[in-house]
Amino acid sequence: MEIPRPYLMFLGDVPDQLGAKTAQGIVDWRRDWCLGQLRLPGCKADLGIPDLTIAQALAGGARTLLVGVVNAGGVLPDHWTGVIVQAIEGGMDVASGLHARLEENRAIAEAARRHGRSLFNVRHSDQSFATGKGTRRPGRRLLTVGTDCSVGKKYTALALEREMRARGYDAEFRATGQTGVFISGRGVAIDAVVADFISGAVEWIAPAAGPDHWDLIEGQGSLFHPSFAGVSLGLLHGAQPDAFVVCHEPSRTSMRGVAHPLPSIAEVIELTVRCGRLTNPDIRPVGIAMNTQAYGETEARALLDAAQTAHGLPATDPIRFGVGPILDRLAAEFHDVKSAPGGSV
Amino acid sequence: MEIPRPYLMFLGDVPDQLGAKTAQGIVDWRRDWCLGQLRLPGCKADLGIPDLTIAQALAGGARTLLVGVVNAGGVLPDHWTGVIVQAIEGGMDVASGLHARLEENRAIAEAARRHGRSLFNVRHSDQSFATGKGTRRPGRRLLTVGTDCSVGKKYTALALEREMRARGYDAEFRATGQTGVFISGRGVAIDAVVADFISGAVEWIAPAAGPDHWDLIEGQGSLFHPSFAGVSLGLLHGAQPDAFVVCHEPSRTSMRGVAHPLPSIAEVIELTVRCGRLTNPDIRPVGIAMNTQAYGETEARALLDAAQTAHGLPATDPIRFGVGPILDRLAAEFHDVKSAPGGSV
Repeated sequence: MEIPRPYLMFLGDVPDQLGAKTAQGIVDWRRDWCLGQLRLPGCKADLGIPDLTIAQALAGGARTLLVGVVNAGGVLPDHWTGVIVQAIEGGMDVASGLHARLEENRAIAEAARRHGRSLFNVRHSDQSFATGKGTRRPGRRLLTVGTDCSVGKKYTALALEREMRARGYDAEFRATGQTGVFISGRGVAIDAVVADFISGAVEWIAPAAGPDHWDLIEGQGSLFHPSFAGVSLGLLHGAQPDAFVVCHEPSRTSMRGVAHPLPSIAEVIELTVRCGRLTNPDIRPVGIAMNTQAYGETEARALLDAAQTAHGLPATDPIRFGVGPILDRLAAEFHDVKSAPGGSV
Repeated sequence: MEIPRPYLMFLGDVPDQLGAKTAQGIVDWRRDWCLGQLRLPGCKADLGIPDLTIAQALAGGARTLLVGVVNAGGVLPDHWTGVIVQAIEGGMDVASGLHARLEENRAIAEAARRHGRSLFNVRHSDQSFATGKGTRRPGRRLLTVGTDCSVGKKYTALALEREMRARGYDAEFRATGQTGVFISGRGVAIDAVVADFISGAVEWIAPAAGPDHWDLIEGQGSLFHPSFAGVSLGLLHGAQPDAFVVCHEPSRTSMRGVAHPLPSIAEVIELTVRCGRLTNPDIRPVGIAMNTQAYGETEARALLDAAQTAHGLPATDPIRFGVGPILDRLAAEFHDVKSAPGGSV
């Protein structure tokens, strides 16, 4: 799926900022794709971008109304239907990250049919995939892996894309989750794919490319998460990464949603190399990305220094301190990667 | 899904014995569930059981017409519709292992609706699952794992069930593939489940049980297969097996469907223990099951002896030599397992 841009961000009447988490991620990373926001009376979230009516958004060139909210049950409230239908009648496509499919709402389905507009349900994949083949393909790939779910794998891949492009690279973020799909306008929520096709879907998401091209693939889950490790392993095999970055949230005491303790960074490195060799014998770690927002700066620096010493890898907080050290290591490991901004291309 | 028995095996007009592979597997393991076969003119397969008309099958008590065939594309030929509708009108449910859903055929869908009969599409799962929790649950579980796909994981689990029951155990085969679901009348084709729910589905397939109960869980794929390892890992975590048996086909030179070499049995043991510990720290191998049909008896015995010596585990061909040695090892490892037929219960 290719979602037409720019987007009008629809927040409905979500009760707090967290309800607009998906939309906020898109604005954080693709501000220029977001023309404005549309909020219903009672909405308690604010993306800090212009409030627009459907008419204003259409006049400004908006092509997709993006339902960028998270709510309990993932359903579409009935009182949102009117605005969505109005957007369709004005000529916009609609994209949603909710569990419920847009076409389950009859008025929306009929409006889309009548006006020939597309409905994108990012949580669902109607794409058919081949099973993975595991054959080496040209191009370079980096995968972000984690000690757990929600430890910064998407943000790290996006930060790497931004910094590599600033250094003159041909680099592209590859989405494997719903927010990532909105941010890149393309991709597949890999956890929604039928199990037989996990690695095949990733081969489709990050296909063969030129020898100097880098795909920065958003990881999912963890090889050590008892709920989702199968997804993580299929993703690793399909990505066949040359390099990987381990993402970690040092304040966490147990894995998300289960009672299991977190694995150590060393365990994640060892098992990722062990399993990743199946489809790329040259796989290697190039850095550690920590989310240190729970710590003061001194403490954060100390945590990163300790990780760097323990694992012999650059360790940084991508949001707080940037990903420069990881890119420098990538440059040292791979000849085609430049080591500093403005280096020879 | 619980598929009502006994079955009338429908073979259509498949062109050879391989076309009836699914049906043959059911007859091999559940002869008494199979009332007879129904073959159309031109059918070249024969299950060696009575040929019955729909009327004869109904008179004999048949409750499900089972479409037990494999064909290119997995479609239902139009000229099979008449017999299937006739079975529904007579009061039978219909079960299919084809990729195409039965209800995609309008005449079949309407007949089922009109007569209140169920249509089972074993390749598809409409069951909703929770994500896996990885919490230890009571009961014993054994998983068959493999160096590759199609190396005897289902047959080994079924042979273990048969032999354990003969020794007086409370043992149950747990299906994770379509033929296995027909054989057990229950289960889920795990490769058809949405990726997020692989381990959760296995927790549902092999639930908590009494302390002396053994589930014998059919493995899928291989941790070393680049197409399907994600499924295998989710299955391992969801099964949280106390014991596993490594299945191997020694004549194979590359993994099924891909160019990758087979892993060694030692590699499979090591990685299965390494990853399986996440949900069961006590996981251990209890045997090696080889499919030696490509070899003469002397050669087969030599292969098994060599594996037994190399890995310190009983090695056998379940079909040719039985699974007795593996059960003896299980008895030595777990106090509640008896070591010989007729032993104290």
